[in-house]
Amino acid sequence: MAVGPDSFPAMHPVAGFQLGTTSAEIKYPNRKDLILMRVDIGATIAGVFTQNRFCAAPVQICQQHLKQQTNATECVNYFITNTGYANAGTGPDGYENSLNVCRYVSGKGGAAEENVFPFSTGVIGERLPVEKIEAALDRCFDNLAEDGWDEAAQGILTTDTRPKGASVQLDCAGETVTITGISKGSGMIKPNMATMLAYVATDAGVAKPLLDELLKEGAEISFNQATVDGDTSTNDSCMLVATNKAKVYFQQADDPGFQDFKQALFDVFIELAKAIVKDGEGATKFVTVKVTEARSREEAKEIAYTVAHSPLVKTALFAADPNWGRILAAIGRAPVDSFDVEKVVVYLDDVLLCEKGSVARSYVEADCAAVMQQEEYTIEIRMGLGDVSAEIWTCDFSYDYVKINADYRS
Amino acid sequence: MAVGPDSFPAMHPVAGFQLGTTSAEIKYPNRKDLILMRVDIGATIAGVFTQNRFCAAPVQICQQHLKQQTNATECVNYFITNTGYANAGTGPDGYENSLNVCRYVSGKGGAAEENVFPFSTGVIGERLPVEKIEAALDRCFDNLAEDGWDEAAQGILTTDTRPKGASVQLDCAGETVTITGISKGSGMIKPNMATMLAYVATDAGVAKPLLDELLKEGAEISFNQATVDGDTSTNDSCMLVATNKAKVYFQQADDPGFQDFKQALFDVFIELAKAIVKDGEGATKFVTVKVTEARSREEAKEIAYTVAHSPLVKTALFAADPNWGRILAAIGRAPVDSFDVEKVVVYLDDVLLCEKGSVARSYVEADCAAVMQQEEYTIEIRMGLGDVSAEIWTCDFSYDYVKINADYRS
Repeated sequence: MAVGPDSFPAMHPVAGFQLGTTSAEIKYPNRKDLILMRVDIGATIAGVFTQNRFCAAPVQICQQHLKQQTNATECVNYFITNTGYANAGTGPDGYENSLNVCRYVSGKGGAAEENVFPFSTGVIGERLPVEKIEAALDRCFDNLAEDGWDEAAQGILTTDTRPKGASVQLDCAGETVTITGISKGSGMIKPNMATMLAYVATDAGVAKPLLDELLKEGAEISFNQATVDGDTSTNDSCMLVATNKAKVYFQQADDPGFQDFKQALFDVFIELAKAIVKDGEGATKFVTVKVTEARSREEAKEIAYTVAHSPLVKTALFAADPNWGRILAAIGRAPVDSFDVEKVVVYLDDVLLCEKGSVARSYVEADCAAVMQQEEYTIEIRMGLGDVSAEIWTCDFSYDYVKINADYRS
Repeated sequence: MAVGPDSFPAMHPVAGFQLGTTSAEIKYPNRKDLILMRVDIGATIAGVFTQNRFCAAPVQICQQHLKQQTNATECVNYFITNTGYANAGTGPDGYENSLNVCRYVSGKGGAAEENVFPFSTGVIGERLPVEKIEAALDRCFDNLAEDGWDEAAQGILTTDTRPKGASVQLDCAGETVTITGISKGSGMIKPNMATMLAYVATDAGVAKPLLDELLKEGAEISFNQATVDGDTSTNDSCMLVATNKAKVYFQQADDPGFQDFKQALFDVFIELAKAIVKDGEGATKFVTVKVTEARSREEAKEIAYTVAHSPLVKTALFAADPNWGRILAAIGRAPVDSFDVEKVVVYLDDVLLCEKGSVARSYVEADCAAVMQQEEYTIEIRMGLGDVSAEIWTCDFSYDYVKINADYRS
């Protein structure tokens, strides 16, 4: 189940970025589950990762390798991703296993060990089958191609029901720039990344400090606004690569064309993040919870998350039931400073639902139910406190959420 | 569905405390839905209420009446409870409606208005049918009796599947003291009270300041340790009455027999709180999440709640699947100060599940699955940080949770 049409787009290749996918039969036979990505010499690379303290071995290694990268632009870099097993909660052996995969790629691909970045997603706590991965890796090398995005988008999936991609080309200061990315994730999705992986590449050149900033800011308004179930994974990773093959190089934020580039990049992030929520486990609705007139962004997000994570609100979304009492009750228990409930106003799209701490005088249940029958709509909560807004994207809680998560390992 | 046997106990009457129940057909025909309780002259009364900012009209009135009570012991007091509609989110009209019910009871029962306490539970936002309540109230007065506990326990239920009661008698300083109570609640259950109502009465005499303290402390280690879905209701209320009809009077904590009395009272609170979780919407498991070796009680509770509210953990409890990765992932994202994941140890009852940030070396899936097949067990999380503990009680997330909450209003 998923919300909206399955609209995997045409993926523009990014010069200097190749992808090779194969089946290593890591957990299931005949399933694409091993994805190698090769970044040409001359690129800059940025990454952001899960905030979970129990972060997986591959995440620890990625973070270390990013730090050690004093010479990234002078070397080839590789990303190696497997599904099936997350290699999380596997202790020192798990760490060594991920390192061994990196070493294999390093030897085969002619890159230093710290230029190889490992990613894993799947069941926590099971041993990573290094031998299967190594046996299949040669095929990944053989498959490396700049048009390998579609297969890679398929390869990185786990409980996802469909591949997720976004791709744009735009004119920056007279040159064509391409931005293409893929993502995966559908459960354990919440603020601060969640069992999600995302890889976005552009052929523009971007100085490393600027790239780091771009990724941090872009993740905050995209992946960190997405929530399925409030659980944060041990393995979340989002990588941004600028291959510097186009004739555009951004050194700083006021360079010509940079603002257009940034907007297009953020649109790609947002599309990939929304695609994750729309494919949320058991999702039948994609709902934007928008909090306006708050005193701070943190406050607005806290209120939005309290509403979006409320099991009672989420089951009402599933039932398309305008049970506004559940929304008010969630707002009322949000962990924020005190506020006047009389000032709170709630809209479903453009239909007024609540005002003055109660249901609106103009309330007609059929109007609100009609909004909630849609696959996508917005719950807007005006707090009457200030002028700061935040929005997050969430989905409903259905029978299938329970089914998927009660059956996941069996 | 509910966990464990339906073990409604024999209820000892409490001298000076009468209950009368009837059907006012507030929302459904032929359903007991209106409960009057009468507290004789000479009693002390304490109450604690929801922390939700959108607290319902009856809660606001209860809080006000408690404050105005300068002469509580010199008057008769009444509690009037209806199910069907919560009278929350109903604005000034809702407030006036609850006051009108109080006025009716006041006139009929010979008590001042501020000696009448209203309670409502049910759907939020619908108008309280005052005329139906007033038409039925005479029958409640006619039914008032000290042995009315069983009917009242039935009358206060909403989505509950069974009545909840606890009753003990003990010897305090040579005199027999009775403590009897009832509770309701099964959804919107979480810290700081939740759609729960509880009424506990004792025939001991307890000075008002000591009674207030007892209720605050007792609620903290009972109802405030219970969570079904993390949602806090607008209507939670817990009342404690000491009728002073037994020949025991407690002025202060070091009075003879007080510690025994306190322990027995807290046991009643705990039994009533656990009964709510066991009857949690769709519950098939009753799980104690115990966090030990924390630096503070708040920290221990935060970690316990993060685990207990994780939809992924709760669906794994439903599936009886020892998916320890989900437990570690929840611990890892708990909003507490930093800690060393290597020191975390997790037990299922007495079976070691995790140590050193990973699954235990001694782990045998069948042993852990056997623990989780039980209807009741404990997840113990040792943090290795300090010597403070906290435990909370929760249940699993089943298909029926979704079914009940997606269908609730239809």
